[in-house]
Amino acid sequence: MQGVYCDDQGLRFRDDLPEPEAGPDEIVLRVRAVGICDTDLQLVRGYMGFRGVLGHEFVAETVDGRRVAAEINAACHRCPTCRAGQPRHCPNRTVVGILRHDGAMAQRVRVPIANLHDVPPAISDREAVFIEPLAAALHIAEQVALGPEVRLAIVGDGKLGILCAWGARRTGAAVTLVGKHPDKLALAGPGIATATVEAALNLGRTFDVVADCTGSSSGLTTALGLVRPCGTIVLKTTIRADYTINLAPIVIDEIKLIGSRCGPFRPAIDALSSRAIDVRPLIGAEFALREAETAFQAAATPGSRKIVMLVEPS
Amino acid sequence: MQGVYCDDQGLRFRDDLPEPEAGPDEIVLRVRAVGICDTDLQLVRGYMGFRGVLGHEFVAETVDGRRVAAEINAACHRCPTCRAGQPRHCPNRTVVGILRHDGAMAQRVRVPIANLHDVPPAISDREAVFIEPLAAALHIAEQVALGPEVRLAIVGDGKLGILCAWGARRTGAAVTLVGKHPDKLALAGPGIATATVEAALNLGRTFDVVADCTGSSSGLTTALGLVRPCGTIVLKTTIRADYTINLAPIVIDEIKLIGSRCGPFRPAIDALSSRAIDVRPLIGAEFALREAETAFQAAATPGSRKIVMLVEPS
Repeated sequence: MQGVYCDDQGLRFRDDLPEPEAGPDEIVLRVRAVGICDTDLQLVRGYMGFRGVLGHEFVAETVDGRRVAAEINAACHRCPTCRAGQPRHCPNRTVVGILRHDGAMAQRVRVPIANLHDVPPAISDREAVFIEPLAAALHIAEQVALGPEVRLAIVGDGKLGILCAWGARRTGAAVTLVGKHPDKLALAGPGIATATVEAALNLGRTFDVVADCTGSSSGLTTALGLVRPCGTIVLKTTIRADYTINLAPIVIDEIKLIGSRCGPFRPAIDALSSRAIDVRPLIGAEFALREAETAFQAAATPGSRKIVMLVEPS
Repeated sequence: MQGVYCDDQGLRFRDDLPEPEAGPDEIVLRVRAVGICDTDLQLVRGYMGFRGVLGHEFVAETVDGRRVAAEINAACHRCPTCRAGQPRHCPNRTVVGILRHDGAMAQRVRVPIANLHDVPPAISDREAVFIEPLAAALHIAEQVALGPEVRLAIVGDGKLGILCAWGARRTGAAVTLVGKHPDKLALAGPGIATATVEAALNLGRTFDVVADCTGSSSGLTTALGLVRPCGTIVLKTTIRADYTINLAPIVIDEIKLIGSRCGPFRPAIDALSSRAIDVRPLIGAEFALREAETAFQAAATPGSRKIVMLVEPS
């Protein structure tokens, strides 16, 4: 099988990968399209020590032609965490393309049957690769009360930051997207204020909620410069590096810091299907699996839109 | 006036301090007793760059003999933060004995009249110096839902950790006090489990809520080793040092980190007055103001109980 393999040597295209075999309660899907995410770039650099097939933002089909997306956390459904209704935090979980589970940058991928969601025809393959990151973006509103009375700053004008801004705008919150790149800030579109980091910091500490979507250790420092006392910082950045930070302001100003990872797929599928959130301006270049190295270079280029790998039926 | 003065040379007793003068809406009190807190030890080492009279845990009396405690945040009561009901976070505030406001390790101290609370006769002067730290301890239950279904670990067996444990126990939470000192853990008393750091970490990440009361940058790392996914860490430690920490676990496990500082005095006064919380086992040696250097050495001794300075009428 063809696929994009990652180990401590980095990534490479391989055409000799073993076919995935479905375990109990699993299914093997034919991959149709898969996106490259900043987390993939981190994994190639050694984050999580991942070895295997990359890819966790994907749309696929079953042998009978049903088009599906799949949530990426494969839980045991037996441990206390799962029984407490938190399978995404199962300590025994694997994570497709991230943790002890081969991903979807390949012709085929195995996933738990329970993780499948049908993808409506209104969502193209290229849009469907956004289901996973949009779910993660919409998760913020599940963790923090947003609404018309809330001033929200999103730090980081990458694709995740923009998705978070679009999702938050739907709650009525006053959203400011804070970033370094005028061309990327321009993608935010109507209803979202934009500011450079410097301009935002000049506003003072006035935001009720700040989401760090920078993917950089500087993001938390910026967020601390924007959030009001007793405000909330949502931390979306997962990077391998340690942070060196003075946490005393968090105590003195009684800031809440909330880690935020994956979200449920259904609201993201609904938003894409109805075009309540239209991700088409974020779609970038397309590549085949065997062009993986070029595709990853394109994804690592500052300002790139979502790189999508299209997988031909074999 | 006599008092304990702190600047970049450290602390010293002085008998030539100017008398405090009450500004608008302020009152000058005669100090009766004042405690030494870990924050005072930090201030002497340069934390916050404080210059002035130390002391923020105190009981005093008005000229007509009314015995009072005073909340330590002196707010402007005019800014948006104050008008939003958060005067403890007023950006224009001074903080008695901590920030641009002379403290109570002196014969007299000036405080806002609005900050005064009567101290009932059932509370001795030595117990009354615990009103401020106990209020900070009880504040945890205002920030995080505690109750019989909650497993709470308190990391740090100092006086603040023990006060937090006693306060949390009253909510019905299952409290484990985690520390390094068997003699200090023994002070926790009935109804509170105790564990060494090593033994607690061996329990795995099972606590719903973990409060870091260590006053050390290692406290957060220990807390991250104890808190369950989606659990909450309450950060009480304010130190001058930067932390170097990998925050990825906070994101991956969607941990909440909440800074916690001061609390309202009324519940603390009620708990001391009724002896619902009996702080007498925590009272340590007594000194006069002019013995400040010896008193601070005693307070800095590992395992010391609360050092109290008694102030004679002049």
